[in-house]
Amino acid sequence: MSVFDSILKPTLLLDEAAAKRNIARMAAKARAVGVVFRPHFKTHQSHEIGAWFRQEGVRAITVSSLDMAEYFAADGWDDITLAFSANIRQIPAMNALAERIHLGLLVESVETAAALGAGLGAPVDIWLKIDGGAGRTGIAWDNPEAAARVSAEVLRKPRLNLKGLLTHAGNTYSAANPEEAGAAFRQSSERMQAVRASLQTAGVPPLLISVGDTPGCSALDRFEGVDEIRPGNFIFYDAQQLRVGACQFEDIAVALACPLVALHPERSEAVVYGGAIHLSKDTFEWQGSRAYGLVCLPAEHGWSMPLPDSAVTRLSQEHGILNLRPKDLARLRVGDLLCLIPAHSCLSVQSMGSYLTLDGRPIPMMRA
Amino acid sequence: MSVFDSILKPTLLLDEAAAKRNIARMAAKARAVGVVFRPHFKTHQSHEIGAWFRQEGVRAITVSSLDMAEYFAADGWDDITLAFSANIRQIPAMNALAERIHLGLLVESVETAAALGAGLGAPVDIWLKIDGGAGRTGIAWDNPEAAARVSAEVLRKPRLNLKGLLTHAGNTYSAANPEEAGAAFRQSSERMQAVRASLQTAGVPPLLISVGDTPGCSALDRFEGVDEIRPGNFIFYDAQQLRVGACQFEDIAVALACPLVALHPERSEAVVYGGAIHLSKDTFEWQGSRAYGLVCLPAEHGWSMPLPDSAVTRLSQEHGILNLRPKDLARLRVGDLLCLIPAHSCLSVQSMGSYLTLDGRPIPMMRA
Repeated sequence: MSVFDSILKPTLLLDEAAAKRNIARMAAKARAVGVVFRPHFKTHQSHEIGAWFRQEGVRAITVSSLDMAEYFAADGWDDITLAFSANIRQIPAMNALAERIHLGLLVESVETAAALGAGLGAPVDIWLKIDGGAGRTGIAWDNPEAAARVSAEVLRKPRLNLKGLLTHAGNTYSAANPEEAGAAFRQSSERMQAVRASLQTAGVPPLLISVGDTPGCSALDRFEGVDEIRPGNFIFYDAQQLRVGACQFEDIAVALACPLVALHPERSEAVVYGGAIHLSKDTFEWQGSRAYGLVCLPAEHGWSMPLPDSAVTRLSQEHGILNLRPKDLARLRVGDLLCLIPAHSCLSVQSMGSYLTLDGRPIPMMRA
Repeated sequence: MSVFDSILKPTLLLDEAAAKRNIARMAAKARAVGVVFRPHFKTHQSHEIGAWFRQEGVRAITVSSLDMAEYFAADGWDDITLAFSANIRQIPAMNALAERIHLGLLVESVETAAALGAGLGAPVDIWLKIDGGAGRTGIAWDNPEAAARVSAEVLRKPRLNLKGLLTHAGNTYSAANPEEAGAAFRQSSERMQAVRASLQTAGVPPLLISVGDTPGCSALDRFEGVDEIRPGNFIFYDAQQLRVGACQFEDIAVALACPLVALHPERSEAVVYGGAIHLSKDTFEWQGSRAYGLVCLPAEHGWSMPLPDSAVTRLSQEHGILNLRPKDLARLRVGDLLCLIPAHSCLSVQSMGSYLTLDGRPIPMMRA
């Protein structure tokens, strides 16, 4: 009996072997060049999957919320960076966690540094959150005065251990190919080194440099000037990473199996039970327009290559509208399953809340 | 102590009084014109909130998944339409539910009708799912031959009780104002009547007409030719409905309270803890571009009017990037809370998974 026979409704399939290969490859790469591999666990959010990283020697992790830090601390992880600019409303809970584990926090303002310094009773590592050009948040890399002001405030607080500079090179996601992703990663790393040099000139002790992002870490084999990498998405990859060239199709380790509920050959479309609440509404650029995912068929050991010219073109709460070629539509029947490769696996995983391996084993994950 | 003092992380606030007013208004409107009010419960997904509808005399409801039908059946709801083209992989579970309650299903193909007829042992109501022009799914309203074929298949099956025609006038969402939404709703209703007339000519017994959508049901006071309305979103409304003119700002009953973690006055932006996993990535058109939500301040009894020229302009997994005027940024500090009005409340509610009322009472909802 195939795993597909047991699937009645939208189900997140996990190719365990592919995920383990992805973990092993990134861990080996980090070992080879001697950088700390601190993978981002927001992508999988699962104790069981976390254990696969332990088998590769991983001891330090990254998370994106305090709840997630607590979830993984409960499973024995004791070196956790909360890679989100510290939310000072949660200082009491941060403090409770910092009493039990080695906790790293991100700071990008004097105000936050002051609040942490005043509110925390346990020691924490502090990373200055630097915006290396992606424009989301952080101290602008070309504003060394701001970095110096925040550093000075951190250094004044006895329980704040100024550890390093941390950035997320999010602009690698818009790269057209691995070379561009690698170049964006390198540019971001060089900017961190410039910030570090400028802080050293101002009297700040030498700082570590931590850089994230899956496209850059996948594209490069060496990470000059970087002490730590924090990719997360690489464990599953997705359609967006495939577009950037960060992975091969066979590296993609999750797909959403969805029952077909309607065929509309007159407009080259099919409709599946599987919508925004399952796949998420994130998109990627595909053949000149935006798409929510790619469309594959169930296969003996997982799913097929994407159907040519196929895409998930529209989503409502539970409906997924697929564009398909007439010859593919002609082979399909209501009740069939299709496997959708998400635009962004992190958000699809978060939406689904659990996995089913290809041999039919459910894997739970945390729920907020 | 204000409810805001207790909020440490992204929290979905519910203005219970506004939601109850919205329910009472729509129920009164349906009573006044004698249409069945079968509200869509996918918006709130909560036993407790369902009880507020009971107090307004509601006895029949709409849901979007079998899991949701089971959740509400467990709370005593016994007349439920599953308004999603039937997924024939779930026939055994549908059958188990149909043995306990009055269940309505949607059919849009001969194949699905045949599978339901063969697989169901308990009687169910069947609604033909008609596409009245929105182009999502259903039998095209201008294809009466297809409607006649599906009807004939349903009528051949003894346990399938052909009840009516059902459509979701989803094109009302793109209306520029209530008049356009009302016109789209009326056009959709007239098309249903044309389908019904054509089926009657072909010998099909008279069918009921069920029409959904919040913009149309909010814009109109009469629903000529319609037997049943199924709005859902109206209980909470949102920024998208405000844009269409389906509600007033004070009718909006949910907002996401988010801690401020960074200020970037040099680019007129602030960053909150509250991202795609909280608000969802749905957008609405606002001042000529796409936005994920509107930005308000906490107020004594809920939240303020939206800050002028403010919007949630970007979202990543946990980050929300807000565009704000310099004078508003200047009043804010890290650790403050902001209240975001979602583009689409149904998806934000689904993402958050629970509510906090303005008097600090948590209300749970179903989790898949």
